[in-house]
Amino acid sequence: MAASLNADDLQAVAGGGLLHRRLLLKSGLAMATALAAPTVAQSAGPDAPPVLPENPSSPSWLHQPGKPFSSYGSPSRFENRVIRSIGANRDLPGNGVSWTPLESLEGIITPSSLHFERHHNGVPDIDPAQHRLAIHGDVSAPQMFTIDNLLRYPMRTQTLVIECGGNSNAGWHYEPIQRSVGAFHGLVSCSEWTGVPLAILLDQVGVDPKASWVIAEGGDAAIMNVSIPLAKLMDDAIVALYQNGERIRPENGYPLRLIVPGWEGVVNVKWLRRLHITTEPAMARNETSKYTELLPTGKARMFTFVMDAKSLITSPSPGQKMHGANIYEIKGLAWSGRGRIAKVEVSADGGRSWAEALLQDPILPRCFTRFRAAWNWDGKPAILKSRATDETGYVQPERDVLVAERGRNGYFHYNAIVAWGIDEDGAVRHVYA
Amino acid sequence: MAASLNADDLQAVAGGGLLHRRLLLKSGLAMATALAAPTVAQSAGPDAPPVLPENPSSPSWLHQPGKPFSSYGSPSRFENRVIRSIGANRDLPGNGVSWTPLESLEGIITPSSLHFERHHNGVPDIDPAQHRLAIHGDVSAPQMFTIDNLLRYPMRTQTLVIECGGNSNAGWHYEPIQRSVGAFHGLVSCSEWTGVPLAILLDQVGVDPKASWVIAEGGDAAIMNVSIPLAKLMDDAIVALYQNGERIRPENGYPLRLIVPGWEGVVNVKWLRRLHITTEPAMARNETSKYTELLPTGKARMFTFVMDAKSLITSPSPGQKMHGANIYEIKGLAWSGRGRIAKVEVSADGGRSWAEALLQDPILPRCFTRFRAAWNWDGKPAILKSRATDETGYVQPERDVLVAERGRNGYFHYNAIVAWGIDEDGAVRHVYA
Repeated sequence: MAASLNADDLQAVAGGGLLHRRLLLKSGLAMATALAAPTVAQSAGPDAPPVLPENPSSPSWLHQPGKPFSSYGSPSRFENRVIRSIGANRDLPGNGVSWTPLESLEGIITPSSLHFERHHNGVPDIDPAQHRLAIHGDVSAPQMFTIDNLLRYPMRTQTLVIECGGNSNAGWHYEPIQRSVGAFHGLVSCSEWTGVPLAILLDQVGVDPKASWVIAEGGDAAIMNVSIPLAKLMDDAIVALYQNGERIRPENGYPLRLIVPGWEGVVNVKWLRRLHITTEPAMARNETSKYTELLPTGKARMFTFVMDAKSLITSPSPGQKMHGANIYEIKGLAWSGRGRIAKVEVSADGGRSWAEALLQDPILPRCFTRFRAAWNWDGKPAILKSRATDETGYVQPERDVLVAERGRNGYFHYNAIVAWGIDEDGAVRHVYA
Repeated sequence: MAASLNADDLQAVAGGGLLHRRLLLKSGLAMATALAAPTVAQSAGPDAPPVLPENPSSPSWLHQPGKPFSSYGSPSRFENRVIRSIGANRDLPGNGVSWTPLESLEGIITPSSLHFERHHNGVPDIDPAQHRLAIHGDVSAPQMFTIDNLLRYPMRTQTLVIECGGNSNAGWHYEPIQRSVGAFHGLVSCSEWTGVPLAILLDQVGVDPKASWVIAEGGDAAIMNVSIPLAKLMDDAIVALYQNGERIRPENGYPLRLIVPGWEGVVNVKWLRRLHITTEPAMARNETSKYTELLPTGKARMFTFVMDAKSLITSPSPGQKMHGANIYEIKGLAWSGRGRIAKVEVSADGGRSWAEALLQDPILPRCFTRFRAAWNWDGKPAILKSRATDETGYVQPERDVLVAERGRNGYFHYNAIVAWGIDEDGAVRHVYA
């Protein structure tokens, strides 16, 4: 099929062999021939299936009845390595994180079973019949909602990223860590969340006009709380009961999670049990001792709620291997807490030149956007980067710019451009470049 | 909060008390007061949480550390009744269906664990390293693809409904069956599918210009096949490897499923192992003995691939119960194999008058669209219906129209308007009306 190759199609649009994204929308004449190398089949006759010498001639599943129906399915046993990696604190049982294996996933939905976790005292086993949500404080009619109450309210559905404010913090290290993209950047996941717009419940309790903050408290044994500006909660927060179609998983807040679109994970309070309407923040642990950073200027960053635009190349990525000089589809994820992704650019020469990537529809606000780019790799060392721009015009910064601005006390909100170095042998490493 | 009630808001826009859909977009002043009945809390002081007499004062999960991290999560044990209901054929092991519990789900994504199943010989346990996809017949270069080959091709993601052509066939019965909406209509599910556009692979094998049909064969022990027009496969079919972000589940075709957007489930071949390019259909079991119906005119309906527009009210629905005269959110799902849903109307008086429902964004082609409507139920007997219109102008038909057109040999493609009768005591029954 070499005749299908079109010289224009293989014209690089940026350094290092990046091709135009239109190639991914064509039937793939050029891509297909170069990308993969299926074995040419030997036909045993016009109507017979092709036969390959190495083809297992007759696998058992073509001859034996399969397994029975299941009332609740699970993945193939051949996919049992696609799991969250767990980073638990041995001195504090139930304290730690688990990372989403971003390098093994496609599309924009994170399966609920693989959504990242951050717990302070393990996963509570909450009986929904006994759970209550209290809304009180500067209100005219404090109320206590049961789950049955809440299930009867009007609902709204939104597909949203939740990203831990501490995601990617290994990026602050002096040396680039060598880990899979999930175990480095996987404290971010994207789900379809459904629940009651919080504005409805706040209207119902009659919020005092002088109130400006809400202290949200979770119902695990850590009983953590966090302060959130009332205006944001009135604007677009959801008291979520469903995740990806079914009721929220225990590790993600069953039976109730506060969803604060585009804001750092810590304010998306799990096992939500209390919203205290007030006029000042609580100055709780997670807004003072944590999530606060001293800047080089001597000022401290606090209440840094919004997650800025960010992108990652998930394939190729560390732990994967290139198969020699060839055309590849580069793929990755971009998102912004400020709205829609407007553009993702990819570089194969360490950021000297950039080619625009193809964005997969639908492009939704504060949601993962999958991007794809075509790359004609010549087999020589290369440095891949991706750079996201959101609809507000915000552009993901280079690492040196971020470090200069935030200084060496940085720990949270690391969203710098990520660089993968490709060696001649096809190995992929995390590099600072 | 009675002062928040606005007389205009409660003005019915159709018979039986249907309210304007704008009510669902407001902060919900009116809805909230009427919809649910949270208990007014007793405050124990300005900063103390409200206390209710019946509130379990201190559930165990506020005092004991929770469960450890999990590498792959699962639902709360309190949700263990949200499962697929299985209808297996006892005489033919592995032959049957399982239904998605539509009445228990929200949003538009069906969790992969609850996606409906239809099997002829159980669920094969396929080793992806041994699986092959052969494309042969009227082609210049027959080829055999491994999964590793396919994983290197450019991919596309689309969120799509798959509906069995036999879904809802109990609608043809002379008497309305009494079952949950899932166990009646649940051979339909919606997932985010990702894989290789089939056009790329067909280009690569060099399809003969005279070819017009493709015989697709699955790799379970039933080795079923089905004939699909080549033009449709060139247009938008996907050889899918991923479902809802992770690799496809075994019961949904692991490691490969042919996705044919908008067309009946049977052509979305699971465990795809062979595409035979040819000039005529195979006239296989599932296009002759099944999926073919004699019309009253004496003609037979065959190769009825496209699934027409359809809608269902999932709440309230049979098995659920109304809580007395009050304002309710009616919710449901609509979809069309021809494209986007343009409009869903809801009736509370058996179809004499209709109110337009609110459609939840994003509205995607051949995908579930969640609709919502506000209903001020007066507590008297009522008949609820929903009616979908798609972007081609096709309108979901009333049952008597469908039965007159298709006759009493109808079994497949039942998409008539569904009616739920509400009794004075709040019980919901399936009715023909």
